Amino acid sequence: MTTSLAQPGTGRTPPPQVPDALARASSLVVPALDAAVERLDPSLHEPVRHHLAGGGKHVRAGLALIAAAAVGGAEGEAVPGAVAVELVHNYSLLHDDIIDGDRERRHRPTVWAQFGEGVAIVAGDALAALAIQVLLDAPAPAPARMEAARRLADANQAMISGQSADMAFETRDRVTVEECLAMERDKTGALLSAACAIGAVLGGADGATAEALGEYGEHLGIAFQAVDDLLGVWGDPSSTGKPVGADLLARKKTLPVALALGLGGALADELVSIFSRAPDQTEIERTTRLLERAGVRDAVAAIADEHLRQGLGALDRVVLADKPKEELSEVARYVTARDR
Amino acid sequence: MTTSLAQPGTGRTPPPQVPDALARASSLVVPALDAAVERLDPSLHEPVRHHLAGGGKHVRAGLALIAAAAVGGAEGEAVPGAVAVELVHNYSLLHDDIIDGDRERRHRPTVWAQFGEGVAIVAGDALAALAIQVLLDAPAPAPARMEAARRLADANQAMISGQSADMAFETRDRVTVEECLAMERDKTGALLSAACAIGAVLGGADGATAEALGEYGEHLGIAFQAVDDLLGVWGDPSSTGKPVGADLLARKKTLPVALALGLGGALADELVSIFSRAPDQTEIERTTRLLERAGVRDAVAAIADEHLRQGLGALDRVVLADKPKEELSEVARYVTARDR
Repeated sequence: MTTSLAQPGTGRTPPPQVPDALARASSLVVPALDAAVERLDPSLHEPVRHHLAGGGKHVRAGLALIAAAAVGGAEGEAVPGAVAVELVHNYSLLHDDIIDGDRERRHRPTVWAQFGEGVAIVAGDALAALAIQVLLDAPAPAPARMEAARRLADANQAMISGQSADMAFETRDRVTVEECLAMERDKTGALLSAACAIGAVLGGADGATAEALGEYGEHLGIAFQAVDDLLGVWGDPSSTGKPVGADLLARKKTLPVALALGLGGALADELVSIFSRAPDQTEIERTTRLLERAGVRDAVAAIADEHLRQGLGALDRVVLADKPKEELSEVARYVTARDR
Repeated sequence: MTTSLAQPGTGRTPPPQVPDALARASSLVVPALDAAVERLDPSLHEPVRHHLAGGGKHVRAGLALIAAAAVGGAEGEAVPGAVAVELVHNYSLLHDDIIDGDRERRHRPTVWAQFGEGVAIVAGDALAALAIQVLLDAPAPAPARMEAARRLADANQAMISGQSADMAFETRDRVTVEECLAMERDKTGALLSAACAIGAVLGGADGATAEALGEYGEHLGIAFQAVDDLLGVWGDPSSTGKPVGADLLARKKTLPVALALGLGGALADELVSIFSRAPDQTEIERTTRLLERAGVRDAVAAIADEHLRQGLGALDRVVLADKPKEELSEVARYVTARDR
């Protein structure tokens, strides 16, 4: 997500503002995250701090805190859960950057690029273990702590399945829309879902309420990922910093590609063909236009909207405090905004 | 550890036999481990099974099962704990092989060498998450499950600290004996300790008994590692498959090196000197003899013996069932045997 302000005269709308609830969450979670990192072996402090200093909006942490408030708890009760989901998110970033060979993240060198692969592997492992330690040490009643730890471990495993499926897609010619959505539900939806459910559990929610908040989070994750896929092809280069059709150029089998393959015909054949070689920018721009004309852009947007709708619908199934419920809705609209 | 039988006429004593208790543990744990692996994303089944098919003696699993029996529980109660510690051990092997660039383990290609680094990173992450899932799903009372999960997460974090310290040693000229022992306690002792303590907890032990078994495991781990360091320099090449002084050739800062550096004088200077360049086999053999003459080999053996003694002593502090206690002693002597 890019937060650069629109330049005067470019005709772009300014990106949506970070909701207050997320800013408030960051101010609670960052010190707790720093304290947790202190528990790691001193040799890991520098690489981990280097990574965390890159920032991030702490969406997952924010969701955990708001969910706790939504079920009538105090945001503070969910801080260990918020820290734990941020730790899992960040361990996955450390490892994904190695896997993808990405040398930069948020305009800074990635940990493996700066400190070596071994350090990045071990630092990721340390954050994953720390997440469970933080949750099991939480000052919550034992059953809540246990439930939270189980949800985190399950979400971590689902996230790994998603990452693994994504890697497997690379060596395949075709991917169906269902496979792609299942991968995105696992890779992104599972941890957002766990963030909400864990926050709810630590805030004292009953099972059905925690489940509904988890469902909201899962749909939010899929909607977020669908928008990400849309921007990966049609994002404004001046905002994303990437060329038109960047994901196509990288031959990523994201939702637009799966949808186009599902349509069949000449467009699908063309996609298979350009993915079988190194396409040039002209071909990519042409394909991007063909995809849009075939309705793929609108279809991706519709999928995002549908999951956003279902996510918000899940919140209506249970009783939640008004203000936090409004904030959950605000965060949902923010992370799925198409002008980010 | 090598299990090849002595060849007639080589004059070598046959290696110690695998204790019955470990063989029995393998027969209980291997099916449970296979069932746990079934829970992973299908794309990870092949690499994980490839790795696990390499074998191993399931020392950690065996310790967990025997510990449960030692405190009056049934070995079966500790199976989820045994599976969890094996999973943590194996995730660390998957990641360590990448970090160390090792292309072979147990005479088979390592996962990263066969399936790629990305797959090996993700497969390791999956086993680490699975370990916690298996423990939290154990059919034990909730407080025992929670205590077991916490001990596992703490041991995992300690193991990571040890691995991280070991990596940091590579870029240093000198390492003290204390630093080296602390690293080995973390890297090897913590998980062996957790195996015993978790087995005890799942077998229904009180806190003091679980603590004593954990202490036994920690000393056992340090003793095992000290013997490993000894064999890394003075192991019989026909048994280890490695040249005389293999660890010196690889410039590893293990216990013999730390002890020699601690002695100071010409020998310490020589070690610093040969570690500053790529030493040849003749220099290594000469240094190996000098180390032995300076009493370093005996000193390492004495450290192993002392930790073995302290480990067995911890068992005498609490009330344990006779036969499992005898088996713990047998396993301790087996894993610290210097003719393995």
